[in-house]
Amino acid sequence: MPRLLIISQDAIEYLRLIEQADLPGLSMYAVQKATDTIPCGEEFDLLLGEPALIRHVVGCLPNLRWAQCTWAGVEPLLQPGMRRDYTLTNVRFVYGPQMAEYVYGYLLLIARGTLSRLQAQQEGRWDTTLPGTLRRKMLGLLGVGSIGAHLAGTARHFGMHVRGYTRFSESCPDVAAYFHGEQLLEFASGLDYLVCVLPGTGATYHLVDTRVLRALPPHAWLVNIGRGTTVDQAALVEALQARRIGGAVLDVFEQEPLPPEHPLWHTPNTFITAHVAAKNYLPDIAGLFCENYLRFLRGEPLRGVVDFEAGY
Amino acid sequence: MPRLLIISQDAIEYLRLIEQADLPGLSMYAVQKATDTIPCGEEFDLLLGEPALIRHVVGCLPNLRWAQCTWAGVEPLLQPGMRRDYTLTNVRFVYGPQMAEYVYGYLLLIARGTLSRLQAQQEGRWDTTLPGTLRRKMLGLLGVGSIGAHLAGTARHFGMHVRGYTRFSESCPDVAAYFHGEQLLEFASGLDYLVCVLPGTGATYHLVDTRVLRALPPHAWLVNIGRGTTVDQAALVEALQARRIGGAVLDVFEQEPLPPEHPLWHTPNTFITAHVAAKNYLPDIAGLFCENYLRFLRGEPLRGVVDFEAGY
Repeated sequence: MPRLLIISQDAIEYLRLIEQADLPGLSMYAVQKATDTIPCGEEFDLLLGEPALIRHVVGCLPNLRWAQCTWAGVEPLLQPGMRRDYTLTNVRFVYGPQMAEYVYGYLLLIARGTLSRLQAQQEGRWDTTLPGTLRRKMLGLLGVGSIGAHLAGTARHFGMHVRGYTRFSESCPDVAAYFHGEQLLEFASGLDYLVCVLPGTGATYHLVDTRVLRALPPHAWLVNIGRGTTVDQAALVEALQARRIGGAVLDVFEQEPLPPEHPLWHTPNTFITAHVAAKNYLPDIAGLFCENYLRFLRGEPLRGVVDFEAGY
Repeated sequence: MPRLLIISQDAIEYLRLIEQADLPGLSMYAVQKATDTIPCGEEFDLLLGEPALIRHVVGCLPNLRWAQCTWAGVEPLLQPGMRRDYTLTNVRFVYGPQMAEYVYGYLLLIARGTLSRLQAQQEGRWDTTLPGTLRRKMLGLLGVGSIGAHLAGTARHFGMHVRGYTRFSESCPDVAAYFHGEQLLEFASGLDYLVCVLPGTGATYHLVDTRVLRALPPHAWLVNIGRGTTVDQAALVEALQARRIGGAVLDVFEQEPLPPEHPLWHTPNTFITAHVAAKNYLPDIAGLFCENYLRFLRGEPLRGVVDFEAGY
């Protein structure tokens, strides 16, 4: 019988949610801190929790076969010398719907001129300016993993055209054209919206730089929901101040919180949010664990398996 | 060979768009006004144009078999004594995508607190309030025709639950539960968003009245993109001022333009737009004509056939 150890600040809630699912043959033990008393480590073959907590016990569970993280980023488990002889899964699959709400909330606000209509209302003015539309506009996804693929599906639902820039993968059917490697500027030219969904790695550092910002059409908007380090913020400030792009929607920054004196707070056509595009929604995470548990029992590949080398 | 008469202020553009489609066996003649010289009426069996223009010629085309209107509302062709021995189609199918952009633009703005985040930005404040979501929220569609069905599809894409209130129809697979007749208050209770997509007929006049507004949960928002007459505006003003509902998004009104002195301009939690949720987009309408033409040739049912009795 598989035995699951839960180590999470939300351990009680995870226990409740997973018990509700009535999974076959699973026994569980839940603690809220890695320093709580944990019964005999060799009993456990499954692990669920925050990477920063479960990192303290992975070395003490000789029979560990699979660990499900409750975050997308698993850096604490990738330190040199840590074991890699188990299957590690993250929760990147649960963020797509929330990221889609964030991105398309702003894209619709921008395309349809919602704020200028609100201004008209405040002036008591019957404003019959016809709205713009997302339909037939070109969306470029910088990164097409699970979140990018979800955003591509929403774009298709709204009748947009979708391009993707990836390292290798071309697996998302909602992306009509793929670009790789040296094709970054070609990818950027002709976009109406550039949405950056990249993880923060050495390979993505400042990928959106002055050249990319200059390749974008002057009406194009940049949306960054990946990591702040993937955009050269100084170059972005310059492009926004010179109005060389349409605008920017930014949820992530090179330094967070964004310092109070930073010019991005007041550059034109800029929307700033405080790294809140997606939150951890416990039922989603518990649901992903349950789905993966059933796959685990059947010997099928799990969803969200982390490549220890690539780091995501 | 079918012969099409186009009478439209956009006749030249329609002619160009339909010629591009290279439809089999179609000849066309286009005029911009019903008073322009029209060649021998008996030549034409097909008609395309604005209802207010083509109404002047339907009586002069003895061989008329099908008329495609470029509007959704066809009132000018429903006057007493006018012929009804031909197939009349409207363009209700082209509005779904635009209506979806309007509705979900506002729903995302409301659910995710976009305006309060904008306020925080203007104050240079790093606002980590977690956003709300549309997922698992209950959307009620008052009217599930072609526009309502499209809105239901978008709701499902965003993970919402969908209820529909209709006269009879239960044909949209994205609506999980249907309500009819006396079930209106039951339908309204438990909704997070009530979206009104009804045409303006005797049967829909003030359907959203004090009773319906009281049946809604206090956090629920009303969205009206149908016709202004379907909502009792005085009752709505009262509900908004007393904060008995969450708010309202209104694109249509009992009197348009909304008079400058009307209280709705300044009721709390109210978004006012000037009947601009959907515009006539010529390529969509030409595309619908082309699709219907191919169905016509194959003897298949056309899309958007108007029921002369029901009036839509």
